[in-house]
Amino acid sequence: MALSVEKTSSGREYKVKDMSQADFGRLEIELAEVEMPGLMACRAEFGPAQPFKGAKITGSLHMTIQTAVLIETLTALGADVRWCSCNIFSTQDHAAAAIARDSAAVFAWKGETLQEYWWCADRSLDWGAGGGPDLIVDDGGDVTLLIHEGVKAEEAFEKTGKVPDPASTDNPEFQIVLTMIRDGLKANPKKFTKMKERLVGVSEETTTGVKRLYQMEANGALLFPAINVNDSVTKSKFDNLYGCRHSLPDGLMRATDVMIAGKVAVICGYGDVGKGCASAMKHAGARVIVTEIDPICALQALMEGLQVLTLDDVLSVGDIFVTTTGNKDIIMVDHMKKMKNNAIVCNIGHFDNEIDMLGLEKYPGIKRVTIKPQTDRWIFPETKTGIILLAEGRLMNLGCATGHPSFVMSCSFTNQVIAQMELWKEKASGKYEKKVYVLPKHLDEKVAALHLGKLGAKLTKLTKEQSDYISIPIEGPYKPPHYRY
Amino acid sequence: MALSVEKTSSGREYKVKDMSQADFGRLEIELAEVEMPGLMACRAEFGPAQPFKGAKITGSLHMTIQTAVLIETLTALGADVRWCSCNIFSTQDHAAAAIARDSAAVFAWKGETLQEYWWCADRSLDWGAGGGPDLIVDDGGDVTLLIHEGVKAEEAFEKTGKVPDPASTDNPEFQIVLTMIRDGLKANPKKFTKMKERLVGVSEETTTGVKRLYQMEANGALLFPAINVNDSVTKSKFDNLYGCRHSLPDGLMRATDVMIAGKVAVICGYGDVGKGCASAMKHAGARVIVTEIDPICALQALMEGLQVLTLDDVLSVGDIFVTTTGNKDIIMVDHMKKMKNNAIVCNIGHFDNEIDMLGLEKYPGIKRVTIKPQTDRWIFPETKTGIILLAEGRLMNLGCATGHPSFVMSCSFTNQVIAQMELWKEKASGKYEKKVYVLPKHLDEKVAALHLGKLGAKLTKLTKEQSDYISIPIEGPYKPPHYRY
Amino acid sequence: MALSVEKTSSGREYKVKDMSQADFGRLEIELAEVEMPGLMACRAEFGPAQPFKGAKITGSLHMTIQTAVLIETLTALGADVRWCSCNIFSTQDHAAAAIARDSAAVFAWKGETLQEYWWCADRSLDWGAGGGPDLIVDDGGDVTLLIHEGVKAEEAFEKTGKVPDPASTDNPEFQIVLTMIRDGLKANPKKFTKMKERLVGVSEETTTGVKRLYQMEANGALLFPAINVNDSVTKSKFDNLYGCRHSLPDGLMRATDVMIAGKVAVICGYGDVGKGCASAMKHAGARVIVTEIDPICALQALMEGLQVLTLDDVLSVGDIFVTTTGNKDIIMVDHMKKMKNNAIVCNIGHFDNEIDMLGLEKYPGIKRVTIKPQTDRWIFPETKTGIILLAEGRLMNLGCATGHPSFVMSCSFTNQVIAQMELWKEKASGKYEKKVYVLPKHLDEKVAALHLGKLGAKLTKLTKEQSDYISIPIEGPYKPPHYRY
Amino acid sequence: MALSVEKTSSGREYKVKDMSQADFGRLEIELAEVEMPGLMACRAEFGPAQPFKGAKITGSLHMTIQTAVLIETLTALGADVRWCSCNIFSTQDHAAAAIARDSAAVFAWKGETLQEYWWCADRSLDWGAGGGPDLIVDDGGDVTLLIHEGVKAEEAFEKTGKVPDPASTDNPEFQIVLTMIRDGLKANPKKFTKMKERLVGVSEETTTGVKRLYQMEANGALLFPAINVNDSVTKSKFDNLYGCRHSLPDGLMRATDVMIAGKVAVICGYGDVGKGCASAMKHAGARVIVTEIDPICALQALMEGLQVLTLDDVLSVGDIFVTTTGNKDIIMVDHMKKMKNNAIVCNIGHFDNEIDMLGLEKYPGIKRVTIKPQTDRWIFPETKTGIILLAEGRLMNLGCATGHPSFVMSCSFTNQVIAQMELWKEKASGKYEKKVYVLPKHLDEKVAALHLGKLGAKLTKLTKEQSDYISIPIEGPYKPPHYRY
Repeated sequence: MALSVEKTSSGREYKVKDMSQADFGRLEIELAEVEMPGLMACRAEFGPAQPFKGAKITGSLHMTIQTAVLIETLTALGADVRWCSCNIFSTQDHAAAAIARDSAAVFAWKGETLQEYWWCADRSLDWGAGGGPDLIVDDGGDVTLLIHEGVKAEEAFEKTGKVPDPASTDNPEFQIVLTMIRDGLKANPKKFTKMKERLVGVSEETTTGVKRLYQMEANGALLFPAINVNDSVTKSKFDNLYGCRHSLPDGLMRATDVMIAGKVAVICGYGDVGKGCASAMKHAGARVIVTEIDPICALQALMEGLQVLTLDDVLSVGDIFVTTTGNKDIIMVDHMKKMKNNAIVCNIGHFDNEIDMLGLEKYPGIKRVTIKPQTDRWIFPETKTGIILLAEGRLMNLGCATGHPSFVMSCSFTNQVIAQMELWKEKASGKYEKKVYVLPKHLDEKVAALHLGKLGAKLTKLTKEQSDYISIPIEGPYKPPHYRY
Repeated sequence: MALSVEKTSSGREYKVKDMSQADFGRLEIELAEVEMPGLMACRAEFGPAQPFKGAKITGSLHMTIQTAVLIETLTALGADVRWCSCNIFSTQDHAAAAIARDSAAVFAWKGETLQEYWWCADRSLDWGAGGGPDLIVDDGGDVTLLIHEGVKAEEAFEKTGKVPDPASTDNPEFQIVLTMIRDGLKANPKKFTKMKERLVGVSEETTTGVKRLYQMEANGALLFPAINVNDSVTKSKFDNLYGCRHSLPDGLMRATDVMIAGKVAVICGYGDVGKGCASAMKHAGARVIVTEIDPICALQALMEGLQVLTLDDVLSVGDIFVTTTGNKDIIMVDHMKKMKNNAIVCNIGHFDNEIDMLGLEKYPGIKRVTIKPQTDRWIFPETKTGIILLAEGRLMNLGCATGHPSFVMSCSFTNQVIAQMELWKEKASGKYEKKVYVLPKHLDEKVAALHLGKLGAKLTKLTKEQSDYISIPIEGPYKPPHYRY
Repeated sequence: MALSVEKTSSGREYKVKDMSQADFGRLEIELAEVEMPGLMACRAEFGPAQPFKGAKITGSLHMTIQTAVLIETLTALGADVRWCSCNIFSTQDHAAAAIARDSAAVFAWKGETLQEYWWCADRSLDWGAGGGPDLIVDDGGDVTLLIHEGVKAEEAFEKTGKVPDPASTDNPEFQIVLTMIRDGLKANPKKFTKMKERLVGVSEETTTGVKRLYQMEANGALLFPAINVNDSVTKSKFDNLYGCRHSLPDGLMRATDVMIAGKVAVICGYGDVGKGCASAMKHAGARVIVTEIDPICALQALMEGLQVLTLDDVLSVGDIFVTTTGNKDIIMVDHMKKMKNNAIVCNIGHFDNEIDMLGLEKYPGIKRVTIKPQTDRWIFPETKTGIILLAEGRLMNLGCATGHPSFVMSCSFTNQVIAQMELWKEKASGKYEKKVYVLPKHLDEKVAALHLGKLGAKLTKLTKEQSDYISIPIEGPYKPPHYRY
Repeated sequence: MALSVEKTSSGREYKVKDMSQADFGRLEIELAEVEMPGLMACRAEFGPAQPFKGAKITGSLHMTIQTAVLIETLTALGADVRWCSCNIFSTQDHAAAAIARDSAAVFAWKGETLQEYWWCADRSLDWGAGGGPDLIVDDGGDVTLLIHEGVKAEEAFEKTGKVPDPASTDNPEFQIVLTMIRDGLKANPKKFTKMKERLVGVSEETTTGVKRLYQMEANGALLFPAINVNDSVTKSKFDNLYGCRHSLPDGLMRATDVMIAGKVAVICGYGDVGKGCASAMKHAGARVIVTEIDPICALQALMEGLQVLTLDDVLSVGDIFVTTTGNKDIIMVDHMKKMKNNAIVCNIGHFDNEIDMLGLEKYPGIKRVTIKPQTDRWIFPETKTGIILLAEGRLMNLGCATGHPSFVMSCSFTNQVIAQMELWKEKASGKYEKKVYVLPKHLDEKVAALHLGKLGAKLTKLTKEQSDYISIPIEGPYKPPHYRY
């Protein structure tokens, strides 16, 4: 696509695939609203007070229908919003179109190149003359990374006059980031520095981004406060677990139509995501084998009747391989060439380095046959057999299906809204330092409570005597911080 | 679409949506072959002998990728084939294109009108001057019905000169059938009579078609032998059960992206299809309520922890309603107007009369909003709330997703191939009268055996002593005819 | 125990372990009645008419609390009853005591020797001068076998003067039977002949007994009509499946207290019993491996995510081995010596020849350590490791626990009551020949219906139009005879 | 029982039910050892160094077979041990006998009165002239409570000369404690004070005891260091969850033989214990309804397809009621009188105040019928219907069955051994203050690792590059402290 910003009749900037899909997007947004009681309750409770009045929010998070409801909750609470997706395949183009037309500046489409991806990220940060953003909603931490790298480059440039050298890294994606920073540096040598000075904070959505934040905090490199939304119970124990339980089979079915029953599914990693994936495969009639490094998670898998082996043990046995680790180099090309013909290989972790895509692409004589977008068969020359690789190793549930369903995203995104409100409310109080925080338990419990009515649940209430007996307030919080659910 | 027959460069007739999708279809057919060991084993075992040499086979069965592998198994065994779909929404256009281009005369596309549907059926029977078909593969019995109605009309016309009167029925679809027969009658007054005289037999795929056949047999109206493939164990206890367990959530997800966990799913009917549906919903985290007329099936549901109530009891509780009964008038418009906003209503039974589509369409002031093809929201004027109706009340797994996966269809279709071979082999022997037959158990067991290797299973073999002790031959059949599995 | 018949104060004969347990038995019988709605409904519906007036019924069926409710249903309907157990370990002594004291002549205790077992069987047939029985309730067919062997011996004796020779068989149990017949022959050379002439028929409870009956029917050897209760849907698809799903873990827990989660359970046979066992183990967190001879059942196991291998493949992997086949020689001593230390080996099929007890006992240098009754550790001399063998290879759910729970036995036993009533009602009509019959479907459905209310279920009723459309009577039966449920 | 201490021939003190059961206990202990790899690994790894040499350990923890293996692990590591049970019904008498005969001073039997219970606790603390204990293993905190109350009384007595007044409390059990302290005070006015001065620390097993410890820590009342074993992941997420999943159905079956399938099970509380209970009931075929105060746990239940309602909503619907809350006054007599006839009511939480036993006993005209020990039917005078109450409201899995199986207790108890070793090793270092500690994660992971081999699992090992990438040491710990598993 030509990388030029377009404008709506009202003057709002955007770049999406096809504006004519906006009506379709709007219909699906309306359906999603019924399934997202937490976000709708935020609109009802906080909308009148316009708590985000004056706040400029940049978001980098899969531009789906569910995210559209999040964005319009932020705008309903008074925010100005610019948005990009955090994955090249995860945008739903009708969602992007509806938001671009109606609510916020969107730069996102399904099937971006990496070049395009970072251009969109940069646009989402481009608040023009007035300056901004004030707040960031991040997923995986790419926008946070961009700002941190930008600041680093600007500081170096100021001190030494040197610009970043893309050739200093092997990583092709990071070369793009450095090039982009380098190319902007002379024209605007304080762009990121001004940005970080204004920034009130970031709320981060996912395990991978959180891990980066804690590393930056540990290194003293974090430039602004961060709220770790991922580790709200109502996020990590719901979205990661039940979301993936839903979206893994969804992605497999849409991409391959394969019968799951009777097959051997190998789940690499048995954290929350892996647990959701394993549960889905087991319940669809597959035999599940887990690989793990952590003996506790391994023992959990065993208690559920799953086998725990190493990947090498099961290469010739597995029909479906799923990476969920958050680590890199899980399934290498040497693994893949030993698999059965038409074994399915896919990743549901945040980054695309769990599967050795580079090794695959560089394998001498390998042949790639695209069955349909995001479903490729890679054929090894020696055996003429192939594996089926989904979404080019990226998040298969977003690349091959539509990601997590609205209801569970409502839990996650209600945490986001609350985190953003908290950061904004405390922008001047000094409550939040340049550290990583989690939301207090009573807010976590509130998020859950907002989702019970839709499912017809009725809570029991402690009596005064019971409350005294177990030293728990009648209104909660009900558990100590270390409680594991 | 303009209803005119087209021809390939080799002169084969067809009518499909888009011939340019043939390559895509071919790729998916090749993937499916790996998942359909029973059909591929038939090609290997019987192909060389060309058992269908000279046989003209008409098929009326969902024109999907899996069916494509069936068709090409029939042609690999020597048959000439013409095909139509048995449902207006179930064709996969790329499958139709690939078969039309490469293997057989196909008349099918996704989204036929009823008029077009019956035109396609008629084309599939039109073998031209040479005459035909010799054999029929039917699913739901529409082609069988057409021939029976045609013969009836021709007999009446010969006796009385009267032609069928479409106005004699309220059923709009049956009016189309009668009109079609009437319009062809004068030009070709013996068309169906000649057809039935030539016909060696039909093999019928599904519960609904089988029910019709037994009724015709009971009334002495059956015009040719029929093999009931549905009641092969390897069909009804696999395709109906495990197929639907796979395809119900697939259809729901593709059509609505709804979170199934936490919802209340109401499954009308707890036969094989209902059991598969209930299992899928339960395992996806829904609470399942079953409606049943049969106390035995009801008690089975209870033993699985499901609640058994009447539809009226649960209208305001259900989030997802699925009909699986094979009966008519299950969910009426008066039921639908009492449901929750955005309750999902769909049918996975063969015919579209389980849900009261007519009542819905005629409801005064109702508004239909099409979210996307096969996903409509119907909004009642009194409440402004709506239900979401899938596939216009037709088979939602074929209308909204891609039907059953290859592996389980390989079981069903291997039965079809064996049934067709059996009919053709015995065409002159008089073994089969104008009755309904099921395949003998040793063939049923053979179908199963052909599917074990792919899943890595190893069978135990009886010793001679064990065989004697329980009076079961070492090579099977292993169970008495009444065994229920 | 001294084998002498005792008498109650009212003169009824009995032989039980401990009459002082009668009060405890009565309490448990009263609890069971609440859980057995089918039997209680029979008492309410048929009790007033006393349909069994004058009938003398001999029963050979595990003398448990549930059977006690069956017996008292038969007596409530007017019958005179004598009873023995059909397994040396299955009697619950408090149940036997309560029935002996209050209702019927009982000869049964937990832990009979084989000698005692057949003495009890003989007593149950000993109706004294008045003659009897008129009807038999059999489970496994031992009483039926005894009569058939008795008649055979009497016929041979009459013709040739020869008596049966116990040395003619290797089977130690059959030697006991022949000895018993021989010893009675001279004193009463027409005992069994008179018995069979009077006998109206037998209703048989279980797969194994039914198999014997069909073999006798096929050989023309069956001496009186038989109703196959086992193949009522409400028996085989409930008692065999759900009963074993309940009682296998129950038996394992009471016998060994072993943690099932994380273990590998090997289930030999995947019929109804095997399906129930596999489901129980899977749901308790075990990894389940199935062995099968029948490819259809094997494919069913695969569709549930279970592995299908041969016993030899899994000897060193399995933690728990369960035989469910109805065949003999499933787990041999050579298998057992290759198992892990403390692998648990048990049988839930009717007879004790699935596990090679003889081979185990004769193994040179083997050592048996009885942990507690029905739980033995057998230690092999070579390895000093041992297996844990339950209930000496007999039905472990009855030997180590209390058999199937009341509710599911109510389904089975309501079929028994109905079968007995049917035989007795038609005793003079000639309706039943010397063949094996199953109950008609409407009675099967009635049994189910009697059990729905207790579980809070509500059935849907067909409308007249629906009934016509699918040609099924509003009141049922709802399914064709071949339907598999 | 006469409350007098007995002595073995070697002079060790004890009081158990029946010393003749020691051989049986020994056999079961030997079986359990095979199932407790963590404890056996401790013996192998640490035994030679005799780390507990000189340590006197008092334990108050259910005196079962599994605990016997724990005790003999402590003694194998050099400790001197005295033991009592922490529940009046939980002792397995054969286990107590074997330990008393062979290894440690035991004061415990099944069915103690409360008076006897506290006498046993006092004996376990009575180390005679040499003084002791040095360490405490506690479960529920009763021994810890006794020492704290004792010290409080001694301090008051020293200051004011006043002795505790049993009449100062309504709680009959606490009256016994105060009486016992009072009666000992004059003879030995520094008994508990000396004890606490010597005490190195306590390791506490369960949620309830831990809650007490944190309250004491918060109040500054804790007299010695405490390690919270309950909140090791390998304890609370295994024992509490998988242990109860095993032992709830076990207890129900042994106590009542009730068919669980088809029933409605109401689980009060959806913490780890409640999750295990709900899973067991669901998998046994029950319909499960949960009551909760915590919206997060409630939402988890919903995601598993369970209904969440209040107890009042389901009184007339439930067949089985289980309390798992750790709170008091959950099921009151007014609830019980509204239940169905023969509804089963039981508690699996630590203390017996979840069910209103007092209210039941005092209900005017109520009648108690003991079916068998620990299984009572309580009949209300108004309706003549009754409920079935298990284990007099105490832990039903220990009262009616044998508690948790060995394998999962091996996880818990390996944590105990490690905690005791840690306390003893650091007795002089000052590392542990008068606070509550949890074990560090690497020890938690070690406990898990010790249990993998028995189940045939193989762990994956991080590469150096992977370890660097995610900043996790190759040898662990693998998760941040807040990780929830």
